[in-house]
Amino acid sequence: VLTPGEEMNGSGNLMDFLDEPFPDVGTYEDFHTIDWLREKSRDTDRHRKITSKSKESIWEFVKSLLDAWSGWVVMLLIGLLSGTLAGVIDLAVDWMTDLKEGVCLSAFWYSHEQCCWTSNETTFDNRDKCPQWQTWSELMTGHTQGAGGYLLNYFLYIVWALFFSFLAVSLVRVFAPYACGSGIPEIKTILSGFIIRGYLGKWTLLIKTVTLVLAVSSGLSLGKEGPLVHVACCCGNLFCSLFSKYSKNEGKRREVLSAAAAAGVSVAFGAPIGGVLFSLEEVSYYFPLKTLWRSFFAALVAAFTLRSINPFGNSRLVLFYVEYHTPWYMAELVPFILLGVFGGLWGTLFIRGNIAWCRRRKTTQLGKYPVLEVIVVTGITAILAFPNPYTRRSTSELISELFNDCGALESSQLCDYVNDPNMTRPLDDIPDRPAGPGVYTALWQLALALIFKIIITIFTFGMKIPSGLFIPSMAVGAIAGRIVGIAVEQMAYHHHDWIIFKNWCRPGADCVTPGLYAMVGAAACLGGVTRMTVSLVVIMFELTGGLEYIVPLMAAAVTSKWVADAFGKEGIYEAHIQLNGYPFLDVKDEFTHRTLATDVMRPRRGEPPLAVLTQDSTTVEDVEALIKETDYNGFPVVVSRESERLIGFVQRRDLILAIKNARQKQDGVVSNSVVYFTEDAPQLPASNPQPLKLRRILNLSPFTVTDHTPMETVVDIFRKLGLRQCLVTRSGRLLGIITKKDVLRHMAQMMNQDPESIMFN
Amino acid sequence: VLTPGEEMNGSGNLMDFLDEPFPDVGTYEDFHTIDWLREKSRDTDRHRKITSKSKESIWEFVKSLLDAWSGWVVMLLIGLLSGTLAGVIDLAVDWMTDLKEGVCLSAFWYSHEQCCWTSNETTFDNRDKCPQWQTWSELMTGHTQGAGGYLLNYFLYIVWALFFSFLAVSLVRVFAPYACGSGIPEIKTILSGFIIRGYLGKWTLLIKTVTLVLAVSSGLSLGKEGPLVHVACCCGNLFCSLFSKYSKNEGKRREVLSAAAAAGVSVAFGAPIGGVLFSLEEVSYYFPLKTLWRSFFAALVAAFTLRSINPFGNSRLVLFYVEYHTPWYMAELVPFILLGVFGGLWGTLFIRGNIAWCRRRKTTQLGKYPVLEVIVVTGITAILAFPNPYTRRSTSELISELFNDCGALESSQLCDYVNDPNMTRPLDDIPDRPAGPGVYTALWQLALALIFKIIITIFTFGMKIPSGLFIPSMAVGAIAGRIVGIAVEQMAYHHHDWIIFKNWCRPGADCVTPGLYAMVGAAACLGGVTRMTVSLVVIMFELTGGLEYIVPLMAAAVTSKWVADAFGKEGIYEAHIQLNGYPFLDVKDEFTHRTLATDVMRPRRGEPPLAVLTQDSTTVEDVEALIKETDYNGFPVVVSRESERLIGFVQRRDLILAIKNARQKQDGVVSNSVVYFTEDAPQLPASNPQPLKLRRILNLSPFTVTDHTPMETVVDIFRKLGLRQCLVTRSGRLLGIITKKDVLRHMAQMMNQDPESIMFN
Repeated sequence: VLTPGEEMNGSGNLMDFLDEPFPDVGTYEDFHTIDWLREKSRDTDRHRKITSKSKESIWEFVKSLLDAWSGWVVMLLIGLLSGTLAGVIDLAVDWMTDLKEGVCLSAFWYSHEQCCWTSNETTFDNRDKCPQWQTWSELMTGHTQGAGGYLLNYFLYIVWALFFSFLAVSLVRVFAPYACGSGIPEIKTILSGFIIRGYLGKWTLLIKTVTLVLAVSSGLSLGKEGPLVHVACCCGNLFCSLFSKYSKNEGKRREVLSAAAAAGVSVAFGAPIGGVLFSLEEVSYYFPLKTLWRSFFAALVAAFTLRSINPFGNSRLVLFYVEYHTPWYMAELVPFILLGVFGGLWGTLFIRGNIAWCRRRKTTQLGKYPVLEVIVVTGITAILAFPNPYTRRSTSELISELFNDCGALESSQLCDYVNDPNMTRPLDDIPDRPAGPGVYTALWQLALALIFKIIITIFTFGMKIPSGLFIPSMAVGAIAGRIVGIAVEQMAYHHHDWIIFKNWCRPGADCVTPGLYAMVGAAACLGGVTRMTVSLVVIMFELTGGLEYIVPLMAAAVTSKWVADAFGKEGIYEAHIQLNGYPFLDVKDEFTHRTLATDVMRPRRGEPPLAVLTQDSTTVEDVEALIKETDYNGFPVVVSRESERLIGFVQRRDLILAIKNARQKQDGVVSNSVVYFTEDAPQLPASNPQPLKLRRILNLSPFTVTDHTPMETVVDIFRKLGLRQCLVTRSGRLLGIITKKDVLRHMAQMMNQDPESIMFN
Repeated sequence: VLTPGEEMNGSGNLMDFLDEPFPDVGTYEDFHTIDWLREKSRDTDRHRKITSKSKESIWEFVKSLLDAWSGWVVMLLIGLLSGTLAGVIDLAVDWMTDLKEGVCLSAFWYSHEQCCWTSNETTFDNRDKCPQWQTWSELMTGHTQGAGGYLLNYFLYIVWALFFSFLAVSLVRVFAPYACGSGIPEIKTILSGFIIRGYLGKWTLLIKTVTLVLAVSSGLSLGKEGPLVHVACCCGNLFCSLFSKYSKNEGKRREVLSAAAAAGVSVAFGAPIGGVLFSLEEVSYYFPLKTLWRSFFAALVAAFTLRSINPFGNSRLVLFYVEYHTPWYMAELVPFILLGVFGGLWGTLFIRGNIAWCRRRKTTQLGKYPVLEVIVVTGITAILAFPNPYTRRSTSELISELFNDCGALESSQLCDYVNDPNMTRPLDDIPDRPAGPGVYTALWQLALALIFKIIITIFTFGMKIPSGLFIPSMAVGAIAGRIVGIAVEQMAYHHHDWIIFKNWCRPGADCVTPGLYAMVGAAACLGGVTRMTVSLVVIMFELTGGLEYIVPLMAAAVTSKWVADAFGKEGIYEAHIQLNGYPFLDVKDEFTHRTLATDVMRPRRGEPPLAVLTQDSTTVEDVEALIKETDYNGFPVVVSRESERLIGFVQRRDLILAIKNARQKQDGVVSNSVVYFTEDAPQLPASNPQPLKLRRILNLSPFTVTDHTPMETVVDIFRKLGLRQCLVTRSGRLLGIITKKDVLRHMAQMMNQDPESIMFN
C-alpha cells in the first residue's frame, strides 16, 4: 500500500534525490565543507531544466536568456559597486588622514590637496601651502611656528588617531566581528569550499567599509588592499542573492566570489590584469576558464568605475603612477638581487614574528582586550610617527614619493640635489648630481622610518580592525630600496671611474634612478610576505605602465621568493589559515610521503567498526540512535553487514530532515519502520509498519578508492575534485572512510614528523 | 621454492611495481594516452629516492641539488634557444622576403631596410630609396621605370615565391612530415596526455625552422606565430632529454612543454605575459602554479634573447610597437563593437570554410598532391599579390603600417591627408584632416586586399608547409579596422556638427585615430578565429604598451567571441583536433547530458563479458591467449569470476613485457604456470610448474566509479585527473570499463543527437 507521496517519488528515476522534495536538503551547515561535485551536478540539473522549459513558452525562453546572462549581470554589478566603494573609501581616507593635521577653511570636507588645488593663491613651487588650509594650531592659536604650536598639533594628531581607531575597533566588536583583519585567509578558505555564514554578509560589508576608512585614517601601519578584496567579495555575495542560480548553489557562488576578488585587487591598485592573476594565483581554488574571463570583465568594470570617480585627481587608474626616463643596466641587477634577499628576509621575519604574536594573542590574556590593544598600538604608532615626516603622512603617499623620479621642479627633500648652475639639459633628463643636505637628512629619517615600520607592522596585522599588509610591506621595501638607490647613485657619481660603473655610467649622464630601486624593493618585500609571483610582477608592471622594468622586478621577486621559501614554504595567508585551523587544502603544498589510504582511513585498528546503514534491514529507531550516538557527517549504506558491499552514501543532515519530514507527514512511519534504500520496497503485510523509502536522498555514486591507493593520489583527488569524503574499499568490501579533515590532519602530521623517519619507515 | 629474482621483488613492499624491474615497464606506446596519476606518482617516488640518497654523501647531495634546479636550467635553455631561433628566423625572413623584389649591392645578405640604413645617401623623407638597393629589373636592364621593368619584376617575384614554397613543401615531404601546419592542435593534444612520437623531435625542429622561413618568405598568407610555438616546444623536448627527470616521465615532460609554448608566443609577439596566459588559456591542459612561474621565466629569457639579437632594429621587444596620442571616446565603442561583430563573422567563416576545405583534402584526390597544391596556391597568391602594394609586402609590415598613427613626417600613402598650411601644432598632435587622393586610393587597394586575404587564407591554412594563422587573421582585422577608422575619421571631420560627434570632436581637434581601429579590428578577428580572451587582450596590450586601450580591445574581443560562439563553440584549433580525430578532452566543453556511467561503459548489453584476469587461477597460456584475442590496453584483475570483486588493473604492455621477461629469465615458468597477483603464492609441490608472480606490475589502486555515477562527473574526473580508463562497479562487483576513448565517443554522440531527445529520454 503506497501513500501518494511515495508514488510521486517512485523508484524509476534514479536521480530524483536532486529534486529537493523537502526544504534544505542539499544545503550545508555552518563551518562545514561543501561537496563540489554535488554542487556542480545540481547546477547542471538546474540548467537542463531551464533549457527544456525554455522551449515551452516565450516567457520561459526569456527567463532562460536572463539566466544565461545573469553571470555577466552579476559581474557588472560587482564591478560598479566595488569600484564605487573603493572610490568613496579613497576620498574619505584622504580627507580623514588630513583631518588629523588640520582643516580646510573654504570647505571642511576638502582634503589638504583638494583645498589647495581649488585655491587661487597656490603656486606651483609650493603646492602644499595655501591660506585656506590651516593646521589645528594655526586655527586655534593663530601661530604657524613655535614649539607650542608643534606640541598642540602633535597632541591633536594623537587624539584624532586614537579616536578613529577606537571608533573602528568598537564598531567591529559590536556590529560585525568578521570585519576585522585582511580577510584574505578566510576568503581563500571559503573559496576552497568551506562555509562561514555571515563572513560575506551585508552587515560585514557595511562595517568593513566604514571601519576600513577609520583604520587607515588613524595612521596605523596597515593598508586597504586586503580588506578591499573582502569588501568586493561581500559585494559579490550580495549580488549572488539576486539570482537563485548563485544563491542556491555554493559552487557557483564561489565562481562569482573568485571574480569579485579579482575586482577587489583591481580597484586596490588600479591593476585589472594583476587582479585577475592575483585571484588565480593566490586566492582562488576552482578557477575555470569561464571564471577567468568573467573576472577580467568584473575587474575592468571596477577599475573604470573607480577611474570615473577619480579619487586621486590625476585621472590615472593606478595608485602609484611613475614614469622613469632612464633604462636600467645589467650591473644594477646586483643591488636588485640584494633587495630581493632583503625582501625574502623581511618576509620571513614578518611571518614568524606576526604568527608568534598572533598565537600569543590567541592563547594568553592579551586576546581578551582587543580594544585596549588597538588603542595602545595606535597610541605608540601616533607618538612615534608624528616627529618623522615620512611616517606622519599616509603610507601610500610615502610610497608614491619614494617611487618617484626626481624631476627638475621637485621640491621634496628627497630631491635636494646640488644642481650644476650651467645645466642646460631638458627638464626630464637630469644627470646624476651630488646629494645635498636635504637628501642626507632624508636618508636618516628614512632609516628610522624603516625600523619603525618593520617593528610596528608585525604587531598591527591581525588586530581586531580591518588591516591589509600590501601597503606596509611595500612601504618597507620602498624605503629600503630608495636608500639603496641613493647610495648606488652617489657611488656612481663620485666614483664613476670604478670598474663597475665605468662601462655604463659616464660623468654627466643620468645612470641611476633611485625611484626604480624603491619599486624593486617594494616588489621584493611584498613577494617575500605573500609569495606571489606572476601576479606580483604584473601588478607592479601595471603600476608603472612600462614593460622595460620587468626584468629587475622579476629578478627581485624570484630572489625574494627563493630566500623566503628557504626559511619556510608558507606565505602569510597560509600561515594565518593554519593558525586559525581552517580546513584548507593548499594546491601548492606537495605531498610526497609514502603513506597509503589504509594508514589514514578511519576506523583505525582497534577502533569500533565503521558506522554503516544497511539497505533494507535498519529501522527508523536504529537510524535515530546512530545519529544521536555519532557526529559523523554521513553514513555509507551497504547491502548487508556481512557482505560489506557498498551501495551509496547518505548525508547526516539529509537523513535527519528526511526522517523528521516522514514522521510529520507520512502516516504509518513509526520507530520500527524499516528504512529502505533499495529501488523497491517489498510488499509487506498490512500489520507491519509502513516502510520508509529513502533512496532519493542516497548518493548512489560515492567516491571510492582502494586501501592501497597512495595518499598522494588521494590528496590529489581531494584537491582536484573538491571532495568532502571518500570511502575506502578493498576487493569491493567497504573498509573505512577518509574525510577532508583526516587528510589535513595526516598532512600536518607528516609535515611535523622528522623527514628521515618517514623516508625509511 | 623461490628464485632469487622473486625474493628481490618480495611481496612485502606493495609499491614495488614502480621500481621498473625490467626495461620499458611503465612507458607508453605511440598514439596512446598517458596516465597522469601514475606519472605523478612515479615522479614523487623518484624524488623521494633522491632525497633519501642525498643524505648519504656530498656527491649525492650535489646531485639532488642539480636535480632540484634542473627545471630552471631547462627553462633557461629553452628561453635562450627559442629566442635565438626566433631572431634568426626574423632576420632570414626579412632578407628573403626582400629578395623577391631585389638585392642589396653593397652586401647581398642585407634586407632592403638594412641596406638603406647603412647607406649614407638615404634621406629621412625617402627611407625606402637608396642606390645600393636595386630591384631585379634595375639590376638586369638598368631601367627603373617602364612596363618592361615592371613585368620583369612581377615575373621574378612569382618565380622566387614558387621556388621558396617548392623548397619548403619538398623538405617537409621528404624529411619531416610532422613539420607542416601550425602545430598548435597537435601540441594541445600532446599536452593533454597523448603520445605522438617524433612530433617534437630534433628533425622536426630543424626542418620546421628552415621551412618556416621559406614559407613566410614565399609571400603566402600565413604567419610564423603558431609554428614558433611548435619550434619552442621542440626545443623544450630536446632539453628534456638532458635530464632523466623529464625524459623518463611523460607528465613532467608536459610541464616543460607548457612552459615552452609560453616562450614560443613570447618570442612570436614579444609579449612574455601574453605568452604565459596563452599557454594557460589556450594550449595547456595541466598547468600547476609551479609551471606558471617557470613559464614566465622561460618567456622572459626568450623575449630578452630575442631583444639582444634585435632583429627589428628598433631595440623594441614587440612586433608592432605603436604609440597613440589621443584617448578614445565612449561614442567610438559603437564602431569598435561593429568590428567585434565583423571579427566574429570572419572567425566563423574562416573556421567553417577551412574545415570544409581540409575535409575535402582528406577525403578526395586533392590530398594526394600536396606539392602541387602548395605550388598552385603560391602561384595564385603571388600573381594576385604583386599588383597591390598592400599585399606585395610581408603581412607583418602591412599590419605594422595599418596600426601606425599618421605623424607629420609620415610618407606613406595612407597618410596622404590635406594639410592646413597654417598648422602650427606640435608634431605629434595633428588634428583630424581631410583625406587626400592617396588615402582614397589606399582605401580601394585595402578593400581589394581584404577580399583577397579573406579568401586565400582559408585555402592556405592546413597545407603541407608550416603555417600560422595569427598574422593573416590580424591582417584581415587590421585592414577592415583601418578602413572603418578612416571612414569614422572623415565623417567626424566633415560632419562635426552631427549629434554623435558634437560632444567630443571639436573642429581642429585630433579625435579619431584610425590606427587604433586597425588594432581593435585585428584583436577582434584573431579572437573570432582562436576564441582567445584574456590572453588576446594581454598580447594586444603588450604590443602597444598602453593600458588606455584595454576597454576598446576588450569590447571588440568580447563581441567577437559572443558572435562567433553563437555559430559554433569551437575555435580553429579544436576544430582541427576534431577533424584529425585526436583524443582530446576539452576543458572548455561542458557536458550537461543526463547519461550515467552505465550507459557508456563496455561491455554493453549483448556484448561478450569483460575480459578479466583472476588473481590466482589464470595460467600463462590463458593470459597469452587473452592478449592475442583482444586489443584492450589493460585488464582488470578480480578475486574470482564468481565474486567479481576487483583487486587491481594490469596494463597490457606491462603484462606482455613481464611474461616475455619471465619466460626468458625465470626457470620453470611454462605455459601452464599459474599467474599469481596475490601477495603470497601458495607453496606448490615441486611437480607443479613454477608460479609466475606478477603483483609488482599490478596497479592496486585502479580508479572506480559506480554505475549510477552521472557521466558529467565521470567526464570531470577524466579531465581533472587525466585518467586513461576507469572501472565501473555496482555494490562492489566489477561491471565494466570506461576508457578515455569511450568518453570522447559518448560526448561526440551526445553532441550530434537532437538536444530535445536527450533532454526527455
